[in-house]
Amino acid sequence: MTNSDNRTDTTTTRRAALGGAAALAAAGLTAGLPAAAAHAGTKGDTAGRTADGPRIGVVLYDGFSLLDPTGPVEVLSRLPGADITMIAERRGPVRTDTGHTAVVADRAFAETGELDVVLVPGAGNRGTIAAMENPAIRRFLRRAHRRTRFTTSVCTGSLVLGAAGLLGTRATTYWASKDYLETTFGVTYVPERYVHDGKVITAAGVSAGIDMSLHLAALLTDERTARAVQLAVEYDPQPPYDSGNAAEASPELKELALRLLAESQQ
Amino acid sequence: MTNSDNRTDTTTTRRAALGGAAALAAAGLTAGLPAAAAHAGTKGDTAGRTADGPRIGVVLYDGFSLLDPTGPVEVLSRLPGADITMIAERRGPVRTDTGHTAVVADRAFAETGELDVVLVPGAGNRGTIAAMENPAIRRFLRRAHRRTRFTTSVCTGSLVLGAAGLLGTRATTYWASKDYLETTFGVTYVPERYVHDGKVITAAGVSAGIDMSLHLAALLTDERTARAVQLAVEYDPQPPYDSGNAAEASPELKELALRLLAESQQ
Repeated sequence: MTNSDNRTDTTTTRRAALGGAAALAAAGLTAGLPAAAAHAGTKGDTAGRTADGPRIGVVLYDGFSLLDPTGPVEVLSRLPGADITMIAERRGPVRTDTGHTAVVADRAFAETGELDVVLVPGAGNRGTIAAMENPAIRRFLRRAHRRTRFTTSVCTGSLVLGAAGLLGTRATTYWASKDYLETTFGVTYVPERYVHDGKVITAAGVSAGIDMSLHLAALLTDERTARAVQLAVEYDPQPPYDSGNAAEASPELKELALRLLAESQQ
Repeated sequence: MTNSDNRTDTTTTRRAALGGAAALAAAGLTAGLPAAAAHAGTKGDTAGRTADGPRIGVVLYDGFSLLDPTGPVEVLSRLPGADITMIAERRGPVRTDTGHTAVVADRAFAETGELDVVLVPGAGNRGTIAAMENPAIRRFLRRAHRRTRFTTSVCTGSLVLGAAGLLGTRATTYWASKDYLETTFGVTYVPERYVHDGKVITAAGVSAGIDMSLHLAALLTDERTARAVQLAVEYDPQPPYDSGNAAEASPELKELALRLLAESQQ
């Protein structure tokens, strides 16, 4: 350890020599920023944040899929004054479908005030069905929906909106759940990354929440801000493969995808 | 509430009538799956999972950016037998740069055994600098790196790898941190979504971790599996704008992006 600790002492010393503000600029994230913006980090915790931006509530429930809420939260949290709260039936850690990760719900439904946006993530079968059948979730969504500017979902979250009676006539969902969506809720499945129907915006599977949230970012602010947020999260997607579209996938690949999903879930 | 509760009772009744296995199939996620796979969900908790897949450790630290670890974890958690653990200096919730969200670290560094893959997310200035200066993080990364097949980072996570002395000669990082990367660590910045240098794989900013993790998925299994995972997370990106590439962005958009980032951070 002695050798490697010496090695990193160089970094520490250099950093210390730079001093606070200079080191922040040197880290590159604030390069070219006015001094005021570079000091924005001192404004305190969430509770003390100026509530001049959209109030966004993200519903967590046992077995949700990790990227469904976290992609949109990464994007929407960069909007000026955004006040985002992870909420659930009860406060505390909520574990994902694979069991590998837990995200903390900071507020219970009963503690949540009016929201401009509510977002419902999707889940595996077990989590989706349990959420659809959970009266506390359905009641919360209906209550929030009365006041929201936008009621949104990612992946099978649209089935949960459907169970709460909040879908209109067109929606999207996870590709493998399209028949269920149409049969159960009498809704026309639209195979797009996100579908706007009145104030309800549904996104397709998992990663589609990122695309949807950039659209939502523009609705909540303006296109220039949404474009800046896209740059802020360096969202210039270049996946190494082109197999993310179910409409172009072979039956074998679809079966393998669903098998991997089922086997990864608890 | 009575009226709306009646409304959703229809869903509950329909679901109950379908019964367990049929309801799972009806939810669409398991459509076309062999019965065995459809029952994979009963195999128990993480601890009981067959450890025949890659052991992946994701390092959390105060002020990390939410999508940096969660995009890759969503992808990698679908690999057969994947054993993913969120780890930090101490167990417990670790809050993001914006303060909106906390992800739970399930293990402390001292409790973490050998890993096949370690992943270090990026953060805002405050979090990145604190992580670079944290001897416990640097020591853990160096220890893990001795045994990993792949040592990986997202966004400014590459600066943390650099502080631990683990970068080679080429790497990528968040677009605004490229000068800092080159000056501080004598590394050539490569403006690609991910850069492979020996067993170290660095990804560009935030969302680039998703692209990197599909590449990593193929290295850990095979290309067919990686393609199936891409379909499983419906990663067919279609952002509404095309402003995610810093090399093509105007100075004004870059300044706005950095200002939004700075103002969103605690």
